[in-house]
Amino acid sequence: MNKILIANRGEIALRIMRSAKEMGIKTVAVFSEADRNALHVRYADEAVCIGPAPSSQSYLAGSKIIDACKLTGAEGIHPGYGFLSENAVFAQQVADAGLILIGPSPKAMEVMGNKLSAKAAALKYNIPMVPGTEEAIENVEEAKLRAIEVGFPILIKAAAGGGGKGMRIVENVADFEEQMQLAVSEATSAFGDGAVFIERYVTSPRHIEIQVLGDQHGNIVHLFERDCSVQRRHQKVIEEAPSFILTEEIRAKMGKCAVDVARSVNYTGAGTVEFILDENLDFFFLEMNTRLQVEHPVTEFITGIDLVKEQIKIARGEKLSFKQEDLKINGHAVELRVYAEDPNNNFLPDIGKLQTYKTPKGIGVRVDDGFEEGMEIPIYYDPMIAKLITYGKDRSEAIERMIRAIDEYEITGIQTTLSFGKFVMQHKAFISGNFNTHFVNLHFNAESLVVEEEPEALIAAVIAARLFEKGGDAVVLEPSIANNSNWKKNRLKY
Amino acid sequence: MNKILIANRGEIALRIMRSAKEMGIKTVAVFSEADRNALHVRYADEAVCIGPAPSSQSYLAGSKIIDACKLTGAEGIHPGYGFLSENAVFAQQVADAGLILIGPSPKAMEVMGNKLSAKAAALKYNIPMVPGTEEAIENVEEAKLRAIEVGFPILIKAAAGGGGKGMRIVENVADFEEQMQLAVSEATSAFGDGAVFIERYVTSPRHIEIQVLGDQHGNIVHLFERDCSVQRRHQKVIEEAPSFILTEEIRAKMGKCAVDVARSVNYTGAGTVEFILDENLDFFFLEMNTRLQVEHPVTEFITGIDLVKEQIKIARGEKLSFKQEDLKINGHAVELRVYAEDPNNNFLPDIGKLQTYKTPKGIGVRVDDGFEEGMEIPIYYDPMIAKLITYGKDRSEAIERMIRAIDEYEITGIQTTLSFGKFVMQHKAFISGNFNTHFVNLHFNAESLVVEEEPEALIAAVIAARLFEKGGDAVVLEPSIANNSNWKKNRLKY
Repeated sequence: MNKILIANRGEIALRIMRSAKEMGIKTVAVFSEADRNALHVRYADEAVCIGPAPSSQSYLAGSKIIDACKLTGAEGIHPGYGFLSENAVFAQQVADAGLILIGPSPKAMEVMGNKLSAKAAALKYNIPMVPGTEEAIENVEEAKLRAIEVGFPILIKAAAGGGGKGMRIVENVADFEEQMQLAVSEATSAFGDGAVFIERYVTSPRHIEIQVLGDQHGNIVHLFERDCSVQRRHQKVIEEAPSFILTEEIRAKMGKCAVDVARSVNYTGAGTVEFILDENLDFFFLEMNTRLQVEHPVTEFITGIDLVKEQIKIARGEKLSFKQEDLKINGHAVELRVYAEDPNNNFLPDIGKLQTYKTPKGIGVRVDDGFEEGMEIPIYYDPMIAKLITYGKDRSEAIERMIRAIDEYEITGIQTTLSFGKFVMQHKAFISGNFNTHFVNLHFNAESLVVEEEPEALIAAVIAARLFEKGGDAVVLEPSIANNSNWKKNRLKY
Repeated sequence: MNKILIANRGEIALRIMRSAKEMGIKTVAVFSEADRNALHVRYADEAVCIGPAPSSQSYLAGSKIIDACKLTGAEGIHPGYGFLSENAVFAQQVADAGLILIGPSPKAMEVMGNKLSAKAAALKYNIPMVPGTEEAIENVEEAKLRAIEVGFPILIKAAAGGGGKGMRIVENVADFEEQMQLAVSEATSAFGDGAVFIERYVTSPRHIEIQVLGDQHGNIVHLFERDCSVQRRHQKVIEEAPSFILTEEIRAKMGKCAVDVARSVNYTGAGTVEFILDENLDFFFLEMNTRLQVEHPVTEFITGIDLVKEQIKIARGEKLSFKQEDLKINGHAVELRVYAEDPNNNFLPDIGKLQTYKTPKGIGVRVDDGFEEGMEIPIYYDPMIAKLITYGKDRSEAIERMIRAIDEYEITGIQTTLSFGKFVMQHKAFISGNFNTHFVNLHFNAESLVVEEEPEALIAAVIAARLFEKGGDAVVLEPSIANNSNWKKNRLKY
């Protein structure tokens, strides 16, 4: 492939182009009318406008994207994440057009895109699933026996239900019969069907996922795990690699399971196998994401491997250049998703203009973003401004560096998740590694971010007085307060 | 130490503050009147103006810096590189004032600050020196015997000479007597003293240096080498780690020698032992730099160790937290010093305003700088704008990433060494690893950077024509040329 089209926008489009450029591959950007001045348009060798702002008319319009390939002579398409990245129909259209999709086969996407077929595929390899009934059940006695087998606490959910309706958590066997009867009658009245499923309720779940890479020659490896347990609105906001909590033994087991899940669909390219981990460090398969993840940079930091380059090489038909035993974890990486959201207002999007926008730099800091100072965050898309990733020789250093980088980041004009990120990095539950997906509900509320303003003027006045008392000409005295947005601490200037 | 003063400016002051901040240590900046608006002043917790722009009245004024410590309560001083960093007298004054210098002892600085005493110290450990006469010699026969022992080519230099005067390179023994007689008579007539030194002439030298760290408890380790052979005006401009040319065996030998050199002066802190390496991979001790080097980030990338943090921990009396066998090389890093210089005009400084200034980002890229868009490069100091460092899993990737990062760097308003850096990264001598300190003289001249302008308008016209012929409504056609400073390639926009 000498030229590829990136069917995406923002930070991920830039990130993909960077690796393509390093490989000597020309890049084509596509853009909606709202993104005319976006950085990914500027960065690409060529750019094609594919329609109006709504994604259905541009970034989700597969046929326009295929046309843009033909127009520019792009031989391959990298879909990034979101948009068309896990769309098996699009993947097939790309293949039918004689183009290469930088991703797995349409078939693998299709199987893994459906939870039931994904589980069915995984079962061939004895991948652990959350224990429970495989079929719906209505008989109370039978259900009770099954519940005892599964172990308490258990979750009863209506087979015909959805969205949490008719769900009951049962803490112990003594309560089971009563709760089961209530659940069945609730389900009957709500859905006209009393059948329920029973499964283990994981009270303190951690979200752990394993990065895999498979080539077209049957080689599949894993690149260890990412811990994505810190979420808000059931969406990841902070990720890290490796996980604080895994032992070498569990890491190896999960890694093998992830490779097996990938093997069950002859997976090619980069993919992620998601697991839930309970308080006993038992893990259960959730689903497989058949694309590059937002949080892939933490894996890049600890392995030294450029995942986008690997995707492209695999799509070109190359063999993986490393084996499982060549891969090692070096150090620790943490990622904070910097969203245009107000953490003090339930993480609601806070769209607007980046009046100040200065990114942190220096040792162990990576910023993947798609904006510059003065740009507007468009209302049409995901409000992620940037991913801030820090690396350290160990977890403490990665966390300390993240705090330093957050303090160094200057954004004015909108609210962001930077302040939330700092709160998490300084929270003892996070530092101790003792946290789960309930972190935000358990530990965070709007007041968490109310910090006392330091009495700057007072401090300055006191020190100035000291200076003028001291006199002498060795030091030029000139008290003043530097007034920066985020560099607040930098305030005493003599 | 709860608060330290950084007796420096620019990128290195910021770089030190970043690590101090990560360690929870407060920072004090000092600044000259020319640096009032500099980033290091903004970044520090406190800042003290110590005098007018000329360094002798500010950054070299040791007593003002010690006064600034007393004024602000800073307990330690980090001198960075340059300025007072290798000044043994200042180091003693700091100690006498009851402050901690983050660096080696005044004694170690003094011994290593003088080439003769440095060599004398190193000889205790049988460190290889460039072979030659230890004392001046005038007798031709004796000189010839010595020359044969040393091996040809050899260099004859007048004992009383200097600056290259009275220096002769002799290629083989047949020419020796004649050249020696000429050298002696030249020396006699020029300096009134016919005595000369004889030493091996290294025709294709590489500059290899070893990073060492020593604590106050007698533990000294090395952190492998940096290859700094690409120089202009005898000053480093591109550095990399590890060196392409070293074998594991030579690396271990040089590392041991560097540790021994450090041990010869009970070295504490971070230091660098410089060697010259000849075409047979024999190496000879040159000198020891008793401070942090400009090029230290390449070592940080391949070892994962934050050298500034190690310096601070050592100054606090902590033991090194790792042994030699814990240290491993991971991947490869390359640094380009981005100077405000015109490579097309003999690398003369090109001072001015940074009209555009946008730094590269993304995977494997680190920029250590001290400027922002719109700032002026002051005429008073070294014209280095930034250090651009790239990391890759191997040397090829680090180089490809460097080219990508150079292309992404946008600087207008002044000339810089970015274009020179790209020339080197694309030069076959550099890529093959077959280069020495003569690289610039051998391969570079002003014409090297004259590149053909691509006929952008022409390309755009052709493609626009194609587009309009094609018609249809899938793709909105709108040919235009993006006009960016450094992102020149980003030009076709439909």
